[in-house]
Amino acid sequence: VTLNRAVGEFELIERIRRRVAGDASVPVGIGDDAAVIRTRPGMALVATTDSLVLDRHFTTDWPPAAIGHLAAHANLSDLAAMGAVPRWALLALTLPEDDAAWLEGFLDGFLAAADSSGLVLVGGNISSGPLNITVELLGEVNPDHVATRRGAQSGDLLVVTGTLGDAAAALALGNGAPEALMQRLRRPEARIQAGQVLARSAHAVIDISDGLLADLGHLLNHELGAEIRLADLPSSAALNAAVSDKSARWRFQAGGGNDYELLAALPAQSSAALEELTEAAGVALTVIGRLDNGNRVRCLDDKGVEIADLEPGWDHFSS
Amino acid sequence: VTLNRAVGEFELIERIRRRVAGDASVPVGIGDDAAVIRTRPGMALVATTDSLVLDRHFTTDWPPAAIGHLAAHANLSDLAAMGAVPRWALLALTLPEDDAAWLEGFLDGFLAAADSSGLVLVGGNISSGPLNITVELLGEVNPDHVATRRGAQSGDLLVVTGTLGDAAAALALGNGAPEALMQRLRRPEARIQAGQVLARSAHAVIDISDGLLADLGHLLNHELGAEIRLADLPSSAALNAAVSDKSARWRFQAGGGNDYELLAALPAQSSAALEELTEAAGVALTVIGRLDNGNRVRCLDDKGVEIADLEPGWDHFSS
Repeated sequence: VTLNRAVGEFELIERIRRRVAGDASVPVGIGDDAAVIRTRPGMALVATTDSLVLDRHFTTDWPPAAIGHLAAHANLSDLAAMGAVPRWALLALTLPEDDAAWLEGFLDGFLAAADSSGLVLVGGNISSGPLNITVELLGEVNPDHVATRRGAQSGDLLVVTGTLGDAAAALALGNGAPEALMQRLRRPEARIQAGQVLARSAHAVIDISDGLLADLGHLLNHELGAEIRLADLPSSAALNAAVSDKSARWRFQAGGGNDYELLAALPAQSSAALEELTEAAGVALTVIGRLDNGNRVRCLDDKGVEIADLEPGWDHFSS
Repeated sequence: VTLNRAVGEFELIERIRRRVAGDASVPVGIGDDAAVIRTRPGMALVATTDSLVLDRHFTTDWPPAAIGHLAAHANLSDLAAMGAVPRWALLALTLPEDDAAWLEGFLDGFLAAADSSGLVLVGGNISSGPLNITVELLGEVNPDHVATRRGAQSGDLLVVTGTLGDAAAALALGNGAPEALMQRLRRPEARIQAGQVLARSAHAVIDISDGLLADLGHLLNHELGAEIRLADLPSSAALNAAVSDKSARWRFQAGGGNDYELLAALPAQSSAALEELTEAAGVALTVIGRLDNGNRVRCLDDKGVEIADLEPGWDHFSS
């Protein structure tokens, strides 16, 4: 069988183009050599890219729509960590064959996530080859309210959004995982609103999709250290029910990743002020510890005893 | 061997970071969750992405620097086709292993191409998996001087930059290809300056890396057709020497791709005006035919006889 690749590629691009509505900010969109975008005066641009790889970020049994959702939200989480407003997306797909049904399913998930977060798909590329899904997102941010990984200070409160450990537990439990945990793995929701709120007051913010402890390390420089109170790590009811042993839970929460929550270093403040922040963030914000000058990270159990063997980082499906 | 992927990935990113100089337009660059970019007031943003796939765009015997150069210029050519000024780059690499030597070689080619075209690498992503190289470029353009694929009119002159057919001949000749032709395949130079010049006066411009006839089709809509004079297709001295049969040359020039030249539809004008444009473009501009209302493309030989069997399009290495 000789596959007419060129026709296949153009037909797939046409399928994408038909599903994307125009936008006043995009005078030239899908179907030209490049997209032309009108940015807003006074705003800085925020740019990020992330690739999803088979057997690393998803497996063959995932519905294409779930892959599309994840591709969008893994990237949205990086915009969220900067406090940015999501605006435009590019999609670079390398596909083993011209599979229109797979593409339509992928678009179901990707475009729904894009629509609900304010993203407009403006262009991209389709190639033939081993499956690879690369998304590039552009957002906008008020330059006075950018959250970076730098700037954390001793005495800052460590605050996380949402709950931790669900996705890692789902991975570990495999097909036996309760649906609520599987949903966190396959349908994470980037903390866009919380990111915008945190950016206004935090000294530093980071996406912790590689795991709390692994990503916390990126906030620490010079002599900075941290104390984490494991019993304070926020957990979902589903995680508490599925994993009754608290040390097993802590391992998922501190060492696992894939929840796409945010970690912020906030200047010390009253509970009332934190409650106001939570209200604005639209998701729980939980103080899990504090930065100090100890030059290392100490994880304490509910009796204040240091726990040393919490595996840091997360190697997705290949661990 | 258990590879510590996380450490490997961070080390590779650190290698990239060390080789990239800061830029005033990039307050937050490589090493954060996303890059923050300062755009210029009054300019529109131009965004494009392209992936290189093994055995499709390059083969295993290519030096990594040549792959890096091609990755940059394949994308630069899309910015050139819009008349944009190249500004910022993101790099999404999926690599089968943490091969620092390969990465350094790739960066030699990619960063040299970036530097010489004004691009600053602002971020990216490294994953483990089957080799995939995806580049995203951002450029800026004066919104009054954007060249799109739309707008071509009957009576317009069809003009191409540079010479055609070298890369296609190099592919066909394989290892026996003269060095000058191989250079065109492996080290194409995107026509950035010419793109900016053409955008000011052309009705439409397109990158013709998929082949002159295949890409010409994208300029034609409604009743538009074209007449191409094959004897007027510009050829290099190396192509004339390597392929003495003119119909074989025409096939490479009209059907082959990978030269990364531009095709423009220009309002009819005097030779003197065209010479001025060529001067400003910094590369030869050659009139190869004209648009008409014939609703199809006719390729005429040097006696005015229509040639019908010029294979349109180009399927890279897999044809």
